[in-house]
Amino acid sequence: MARNIVLELEYDGTDFHGWQIQPNLDTIQGQLTHAIERVTEERVRVNGSGRTDAGAHALAQVCSFKTESPLPVANFRKAINSLLPPSIRINRLEEAHEEFHARFDAKLKHYRYRILNANSCSPFDYRYVHHFPRRLDFERMSRAAAAIVGEHDFSSFCDSDAEVESKLRRVCSSFFVFDTQRQLIEYNVCANGFLHHMVRNLVGTLLEVGKGKLTPEDFQTTLNSKNRSTAGPTVPAKGLFLVSVRY
Amino acid sequence: MARNIVLELEYDGTDFHGWQIQPNLDTIQGQLTHAIERVTEERVRVNGSGRTDAGAHALAQVCSFKTESPLPVANFRKAINSLLPPSIRINRLEEAHEEFHARFDAKLKHYRYRILNANSCSPFDYRYVHHFPRRLDFERMSRAAAAIVGEHDFSSFCDSDAEVESKLRRVCSSFFVFDTQRQLIEYNVCANGFLHHMVRNLVGTLLEVGKGKLTPEDFQTTLNSKNRSTAGPTVPAKGLFLVSVRY
Repeated sequence: MARNIVLELEYDGTDFHGWQIQPNLDTIQGQLTHAIERVTEERVRVNGSGRTDAGAHALAQVCSFKTESPLPVANFRKAINSLLPPSIRINRLEEAHEEFHARFDAKLKHYRYRILNANSCSPFDYRYVHHFPRRLDFERMSRAAAAIVGEHDFSSFCDSDAEVESKLRRVCSSFFVFDTQRQLIEYNVCANGFLHHMVRNLVGTLLEVGKGKLTPEDFQTTLNSKNRSTAGPTVPAKGLFLVSVRY
Repeated sequence: MARNIVLELEYDGTDFHGWQIQPNLDTIQGQLTHAIERVTEERVRVNGSGRTDAGAHALAQVCSFKTESPLPVANFRKAINSLLPPSIRINRLEEAHEEFHARFDAKLKHYRYRILNANSCSPFDYRYVHHFPRRLDFERMSRAAAAIVGEHDFSSFCDSDAEVESKLRRVCSSFFVFDTQRQLIEYNVCANGFLHHMVRNLVGTLLEVGKGKLTPEDFQTTLNSKNRSTAGPTVPAKGLFLVSVRY
């Protein structure tokens, strides 16, 4: 019987065209599938917990695949890692229950969005933050962020995604951490699922609140309107990290 | 009379063919010269404190150039930064004494070499460390490192460099910092000048001591021999940082 393997993946998405495998484009799923197929000498299908955008990163993306290979898990991890580029690392690899599916069984995902609120951005940071040098009102941003906790229709923060039937998602936490010493703002959001560009559109709108262009009440109105045109712009993918997935 | 401008530069060298300007290759000096020439609309010659290798980084490289441009220094810095790629940033720009020369006046340079002494290397670190997963004897490495303090002929650690007449250099500090929590080893060395690949060859030889292939006494013998073939291999450039230059 085929073994079901689950793995936890860290990646720097800078040089990839996102998670999803695509012909003639370098993607995380493509690199991983290729490496696993070389190790197992089988055709495999790697299921991720979900896609990540081109340029977005992951601290612990979760994915699974089925294989007939008898390789012990420690060797499996080493063998695949040795074939992956250094920008993708498997930090954990285990055998899972035969029914486990990385996408369908995901209960909660945690995303983080990093904003550098400083005059200039170091060459060692620019791949991992959205550089936003203007003054921001942290209190207003925090108050607005809290408004999305609970179950809501997130149409206002979803970019056209014909596949999705329901735009209801349950958010269990949504908050900012302000590290004034490092001039770093981190937005954290946990939910049972995310729509297309949802985190980046939420952050784009929360920055409008921080700049004073919208009030926290306007942010609430935007959420209620279920209309994408009332929300702010999509911030760049490079500040976005998939932190963890819970099952 | 021409103004003499000095600037302090931070760069991630990953995607560059080193400091020195070369036809058809992307270099730090090339990018900087091009950006300054666009701002000043003059031909300029940018003098760095010294070259850095392809793939090596800088926290504060110093360079200078002469210009007739009347632009105030703050605007100058902003204007040049806006034309540089995000992997190169000017952190300081000032007017210097007309005699100041970034290369000839440099009194002391501080280099750091970063080694990740862990089983695996994060996708967010691999550009900035030499990943060395084997066990190392920190005490022996520290003892060996101290042997080069003072004025010595560094021929044993110099890769062929026909231009250089004297291979004497004065080292004022040479030591390791072991951050066991982060599994990070940082080698620091300050000297009045460095030969071609000198830091990378010193570290390569100090790693041989750490692995137990050489004793600290062998390291001393290697230094005394003035013979490159007795020293260890050249470690990769990506762990190397020019930390500061003193005048």
